[in-house]
Amino acid sequence: MADKRDFTGPLMKNGRTLILAYDQGLEHGPTADFDTRNVDPAFIVDTANRGGFSALALQKGTAEKYYDGRTPLILKLNGKSTLPKGEPLSRQHCSVKYAEKLGAKAVGYTIFLGSGYEHEMVKEWGAIQEEAHERGMCAVLWVYPRGAAVPPDTQPDIVAYAARAGLELGADIVKIKYSGDSASFSWAVKAAGKAKVVMSGGPKTATDEAFLSQVQGTIEAGGAGLAVGRNVWQHPEPLKMADSLKKIIFENKPVAQVVAATPR
Amino acid sequence: MADKRDFTGPLMKNGRTLILAYDQGLEHGPTADFDTRNVDPAFIVDTANRGGFSALALQKGTAEKYYDGRTPLILKLNGKSTLPKGEPLSRQHCSVKYAEKLGAKAVGYTIFLGSGYEHEMVKEWGAIQEEAHERGMCAVLWVYPRGAAVPPDTQPDIVAYAARAGLELGADIVKIKYSGDSASFSWAVKAAGKAKVVMSGGPKTATDEAFLSQVQGTIEAGGAGLAVGRNVWQHPEPLKMADSLKKIIFENKPVAQVVAATPR
Amino acid sequence: MADKRDFTGPLMKNGRTLILAYDQGLEHGPTADFDTRNVDPAFIVDTANRGGFSALALQKGTAEKYYDGRTPLILKLNGKSTLPKGEPLSRQHCSVKYAEKLGAKAVGYTIFLGSGYEHEMVKEWGAIQEEAHERGMCAVLWVYPRGAAVPPDTQPDIVAYAARAGLELGADIVKIKYSGDSASFSWAVKAAGKAKVVMSGGPKTATDEAFLSQVQGTIEAGGAGLAVGRNVWQHPEPLKMADSLKKIIFENKPVAQVVAATPR
Amino acid sequence: MADKRDFTGPLMKNGRTLILAYDQGLEHGPTADFDTRNVDPAFIVDTANRGGFSALALQKGTAEKYYDGRTPLILKLNGKSTLPKGEPLSRQHCSVKYAEKLGAKAVGYTIFLGSGYEHEMVKEWGAIQEEAHERGMCAVLWVYPRGAAVPPDTQPDIVAYAARAGLELGADIVKIKYSGDSASFSWAVKAAGKAKVVMSGGPKTATDEAFLSQVQGTIEAGGAGLAVGRNVWQHPEPLKMADSLKKIIFENKPVAQVVAATPR
Amino acid sequence: MADKRDFTGPLMKNGRTLILAYDQGLEHGPTADFDTRNVDPAFIVDTANRGGFSALALQKGTAEKYYDGRTPLILKLNGKSTLPKGEPLSRQHCSVKYAEKLGAKAVGYTIFLGSGYEHEMVKEWGAIQEEAHERGMCAVLWVYPRGAAVPPDTQPDIVAYAARAGLELGADIVKIKYSGDSASFSWAVKAAGKAKVVMSGGPKTATDEAFLSQVQGTIEAGGAGLAVGRNVWQHPEPLKMADSLKKIIFENKPVAQVVAATPR
Repeated sequence: MADKRDFTGPLMKNGRTLILAYDQGLEHGPTADFDTRNVDPAFIVDTANRGGFSALALQKGTAEKYYDGRTPLILKLNGKSTLPKGEPLSRQHCSVKYAEKLGAKAVGYTIFLGSGYEHEMVKEWGAIQEEAHERGMCAVLWVYPRGAAVPPDTQPDIVAYAARAGLELGADIVKIKYSGDSASFSWAVKAAGKAKVVMSGGPKTATDEAFLSQVQGTIEAGGAGLAVGRNVWQHPEPLKMADSLKKIIFENKPVAQVVAATPR
Repeated sequence: MADKRDFTGPLMKNGRTLILAYDQGLEHGPTADFDTRNVDPAFIVDTANRGGFSALALQKGTAEKYYDGRTPLILKLNGKSTLPKGEPLSRQHCSVKYAEKLGAKAVGYTIFLGSGYEHEMVKEWGAIQEEAHERGMCAVLWVYPRGAAVPPDTQPDIVAYAARAGLELGADIVKIKYSGDSASFSWAVKAAGKAKVVMSGGPKTATDEAFLSQVQGTIEAGGAGLAVGRNVWQHPEPLKMADSLKKIIFENKPVAQVVAATPR
Repeated sequence: MADKRDFTGPLMKNGRTLILAYDQGLEHGPTADFDTRNVDPAFIVDTANRGGFSALALQKGTAEKYYDGRTPLILKLNGKSTLPKGEPLSRQHCSVKYAEKLGAKAVGYTIFLGSGYEHEMVKEWGAIQEEAHERGMCAVLWVYPRGAAVPPDTQPDIVAYAARAGLELGADIVKIKYSGDSASFSWAVKAAGKAKVVMSGGPKTATDEAFLSQVQGTIEAGGAGLAVGRNVWQHPEPLKMADSLKKIIFENKPVAQVVAATPR
Repeated sequence: MADKRDFTGPLMKNGRTLILAYDQGLEHGPTADFDTRNVDPAFIVDTANRGGFSALALQKGTAEKYYDGRTPLILKLNGKSTLPKGEPLSRQHCSVKYAEKLGAKAVGYTIFLGSGYEHEMVKEWGAIQEEAHERGMCAVLWVYPRGAAVPPDTQPDIVAYAARAGLELGADIVKIKYSGDSASFSWAVKAAGKAKVVMSGGPKTATDEAFLSQVQGTIEAGGAGLAVGRNVWQHPEPLKMADSLKKIIFENKPVAQVVAATPR
Repeated sequence: MADKRDFTGPLMKNGRTLILAYDQGLEHGPTADFDTRNVDPAFIVDTANRGGFSALALQKGTAEKYYDGRTPLILKLNGKSTLPKGEPLSRQHCSVKYAEKLGAKAVGYTIFLGSGYEHEMVKEWGAIQEEAHERGMCAVLWVYPRGAAVPPDTQPDIVAYAARAGLELGADIVKIKYSGDSASFSWAVKAAGKAKVVMSGGPKTATDEAFLSQVQGTIEAGGAGLAVGRNVWQHPEPLKMADSLKKIIFENKPVAQVVAATPR
């Protein structure tokens, strides 16, 4: 019979989580997403620590040179640049063992569901998931439907597919895009079953309310929380945004009340 | 001389078997096949237990989070989504060792016979089959002829080919599609020799009789039973359907008698 | 200096051999080659035993479920179906160690010389050959020139190429197609040097004489014998055909005399 | 928590470095870059030693046959010729262990960012980086954006992307092309964070001033130094050029002053 | 610091070598290159022994069945037939360990520089080279520029590129084609540095003088000698040709004098 341990413990508070994601330098390029402040990983590590984030997701090199052991670390084991065209494929550049040595409590991996190379990532992830659990580490799966044959990745059935793939492939936490409304997202959460669902923050929204409403929709749908990057560290006041997010995620406060409490 | 152990024991009763299959969340997507009831793996595990199924086939993550050790487990070691186009390829995401650790008595693997990647799956399966037998586990092979160059997969000679490939590649149980009638299916069963043949349930049929007749045809043809998903867990009364199936498979009852006994 | 052991011993009698081949179920499909009698591996094993064959070539699954340890076993380590189109590639599905465990005295492997994937098979075979010899097992190589760029595979220079590739790649026995006449086949035998050459039986011929003449041509050319399937087990009287073959191969009898002795 | 060791120590003096690169024989071919003097690796090793270079970058064979242990060695672990067309891919031909045995203090590896094979190099590098650090060796990454889909590789955002990829993938030192001016290059240096940035020397410039100005721009931008080949060993007086470079890199002297001091 | 052992010792006499190459059966096919005399490996082994050759290069199978331990053996670890079209790729079919067991003092490997699969061979060779040196064996690299994008392979700059690639990739001896004249070949020899250069014999020339002049040109250019097949074993008097070659290679005799001394 299966080991029924809950590997998500170190990243969760009462079943909820707020993850600061910072792998965009490799995934999108520094010029696309960074300014002179947030280009510095030290600023991000500090934001994670002071903002009370549940976890911090970093690539290998950033973790090795900047991580200070305070906020729980999710080490992203694979990555790619945005430059190659064709079917997306992101390969493992960090072993689970090395991630543990760098202090990680969890490992992260991206599968581009529907890519012509889906099979490569499914296979690579499979071995990662097993080793992570053998070392007592949480296995977090970014599931991004992407490829020439894939419908828009925020389409509700595609979002739910990503969530379900996360569950069946053994993710403890599955990070997926928001489907646009709480009702359709709740189907994705149901499809993920006992795998915890976190919404992927995505690009900076025009207003704080717009973003916070998505997060609230995620929580209402039964999601466990959020993995956010740009909407925090591109925000003029990252710690205030962090406070707003924590109120919605951990205290179930409505957006209107949260926004009123944090005027800008 | 070969080890003549029969590895199918834990999944069989008097040489017959009724397997509940539940990997469709990954293979087809949750929206295609599930409703709010059967999207929940707990419901499926419960159905398997209460319905007296011979075995339950799950992907790694579903087993790890839901399996309770009651119905014998077949762990599906490979899987793919329905999103990528091109020649089908499904790679291993779970080791035999991990499957055993999750409590499995058997491992399952899909080969898309005729795919341009057939060779990759033949090779991967080969190592799985050996390790399974070394651990005393049953090796179940889903053989699905599929690919641009492959004739319709319910064509009798193609069904028989799938069955024979299962035998020659070392499957203890081979799961194949129904060829449409008992006479042609009996050729597939003969081709499989001492490998046990189970019919693949396929999509929900319009009437119970239609499905039960296929199962009866399988049994009459010498098949060992059925691996069924949608025709049970999409059925309004899964346990009644399970009862009907058990009467046909284990008691050799004719469809007419079974249907009369279970009015809806 | 090299180990000069002769690994072919268990398969040879006075330097000659008659091998019963039975991997056509996977290679061609059961409907193409089998009837209700020869679809049954037990019939083939019995034919090998009673017909006094030097060896029996089986795929892993057939060996595991039917082999009885009487006729020496050649385990075919790779295989493919006839369904995929494009450049042919057949990958290893059985380890040398597992073959030994199944009771094999020899391992068999097919290389499609000239295929766009020739290199994959050359590499895979290389490791197999070494492990076989380390375990004291004979390494038998099926060399079939096949691929879009390959001339007809019974053309004498192509047959000789296959034979030579077998020698240089380390085969103890190389199985090749007949080149049509004894004179041209003797060049292939010369090219194979100390590697023993066996003719590949091919499809059932219209008359026994036609087939037996090819075998006689092989022996006259210096070949070691024959690996035959369909011309024996599709024959109405397999044991009589076996007797005819043994007279030609082991007693150097001419076809006319053999046919006269076994009227039908 | 991560190991915060600084692996760059043996290659650095006060945080600056001047590396002599000599892998052009394989990368470009000898006729493209060499004359009868610099074709001889002994001349290069001597130049590195007498010129006071911080490190010398060699391919495996050149190191094995010529390296004398005086200037710290960076062993280039992968390489390719310029002959194949299509998406660039350079694979590992030297293990980290062998590099260490050859006396290397650091290993070097090239990733063609944006290549259709980027993923292969990312994966291969990942394992190299870990083993290097486990052996206490510095991991130097050449990041060259190249491939059909990649913008010009001296475009500032592309240069900065290369730098950032180096940081996130775990490079201790990242070697990138110069972006044309100090202002834009300082963004690349910022993007690289705690990974040291060295400018890639590139082809021989028309005048010494042109090249020295680039180096000065790199230093002003916060770069750690230079990896130079042709602009030194194609120079009529390599040691004078080395002196000029050291003045700029280690003494922060302006180009005008350096050139005045070394008339030709 | 690197191990400065000279691994070429067993193949050299005063820094010169004369290698008998015999892998053409696999590389070109027996009908293309052989007659009834030289198709027999025993004849070749005898020729090597009696002709006083410095070394004999064989594929695995030929060595295993014919090698007698007298002339030092170079085991060719990879090989391909001439049948597949498309970018050339030759994969390893013999391990270094097995080569040593067969009595080899050296291993040989072919890289098709410029092939679309160059990277596969560079990688495979890299591991071979290291293991060979760890076992104290010489590593001989055949560098043949070949592929759709490659200029004619006897063009001087391409020949020099092959030589240099051999050096940088760690070959102890590099076998390259002759560039047509001694002057241009001396550039290739220079490019190879401390790697010994042997000329590849190529097809039988119309006259002995034509071939011997190439060899003399190689020696004058600083080359270490010759790896010859067809110009010896297709010669009516192989031992006389061997004598002529030895006079040129080991005694620096001019062609005119050598030819006068061996009238035909």
